[in-house]
Amino acid sequence: MIDKLPTLNRLLKQLQRVPYLASKNLYRVAHHFLEMDERAMQEFCRSLTDLLAQVVKCSQCSAWKERDRGCSFCDDPKRDRSVICVVESWHDLYALERSCCYQGLYHVLGGALSPLDGIGPDNLAIDSLLQRMQGECKEIILAMNQTPEGEATAALVARKLQSTSVTITCLARGMPVGSSLEFMDKSTLHKAITERRNF
Amino acid sequence: MIDKLPTLNRLLKQLQRVPYLASKNLYRVAHHFLEMDERAMQEFCRSLTDLLAQVVKCSQCSAWKERDRGCSFCDDPKRDRSVICVVESWHDLYALERSCCYQGLYHVLGGALSPLDGIGPDNLAIDSLLQRMQGECKEIILAMNQTPEGEATAALVARKLQSTSVTITCLARGMPVGSSLEFMDKSTLHKAITERRNF
Repeated sequence: MIDKLPTLNRLLKQLQRVPYLASKNLYRVAHHFLEMDERAMQEFCRSLTDLLAQVVKCSQCSAWKERDRGCSFCDDPKRDRSVICVVESWHDLYALERSCCYQGLYHVLGGALSPLDGIGPDNLAIDSLLQRMQGECKEIILAMNQTPEGEATAALVARKLQSTSVTITCLARGMPVGSSLEFMDKSTLHKAITERRNF
Repeated sequence: MIDKLPTLNRLLKQLQRVPYLASKNLYRVAHHFLEMDERAMQEFCRSLTDLLAQVVKCSQCSAWKERDRGCSFCDDPKRDRSVICVVESWHDLYALERSCCYQGLYHVLGGALSPLDGIGPDNLAIDSLLQRMQGECKEIILAMNQTPEGEATAALVARKLQSTSVTITCLARGMPVGSSLEFMDKSTLHKAITERRNF
């Protein structure tokens, strides 16, 4: 049936590439666009093209910034310039920012080592991190995800930073707040026991 | 932090209106667009504007059709013109088409009665259904969803069709294929028992 609607089919193919859009919902999303009026559609398309034109990566930390404005982190005099928190992606940075628990600078690697996905050391912004070591930085927090890829990436970054004099730290691991031992997975319990701290 | 990225913020506001896009995934979707190259973005926007220009509702059955082509159902000589299946939405029509179990015509009402959402009888394509009764139609299948709104809509359509000579049928209700009694809700079990049939 959908073969008889090539224009719709073309949009569906494009929507398939949008992440976190379940294929079972594609038709409902397409319907949302079909029901839009012309003005709303123009506005939506303008938002998209403006996005590409206006939002760029910060040359220092690789976080997204507006082309004609400073970086929210690197150019903010209130942020602590002696700490750099290294994260895999912009989503991770955003999660930390939401928690309001960190006031230092960031460095977005742009992913984690994943040979199966073709992501090697050269695909990550490690060189630009090393360049930043010449500044005021005294501590690097490795805030990668607790996945095999994240841990491999953290190990790589730590090795590359070995020759510098900065302190290298990583996030605490253990039981999440609000969790019960009963429902916790074995690996987390293992970390919680072996990396236990004084009460 | 996001206040310092107004262009991105504007797109996020637009994406919030897209159905089935969980708000926790908005940033990842925005990231997908940020990582697009200019050509891909142009293509995406063209697909959207083409969609609005090319895909219209069939004047008879209200299903989506390409502007310069016939309706996949009303203009298909292979479809059985003696049966019209009345559905709430295009998604429901598409679900039935995927099951390959129906070869008749359709009629899309464009929703279900829902006073809280401001959808009354005048918002549904009931008059155009009544006009179609003058044709070859002998049977109307009421294929609304099994929700209070769907059932109220079915009752309304059935009442409007009372004065015509067509047979009015509705979908069978009961246990879904593959289901176990243990995990079935009370209302479905009730329907399955009271509407039982000869083995």
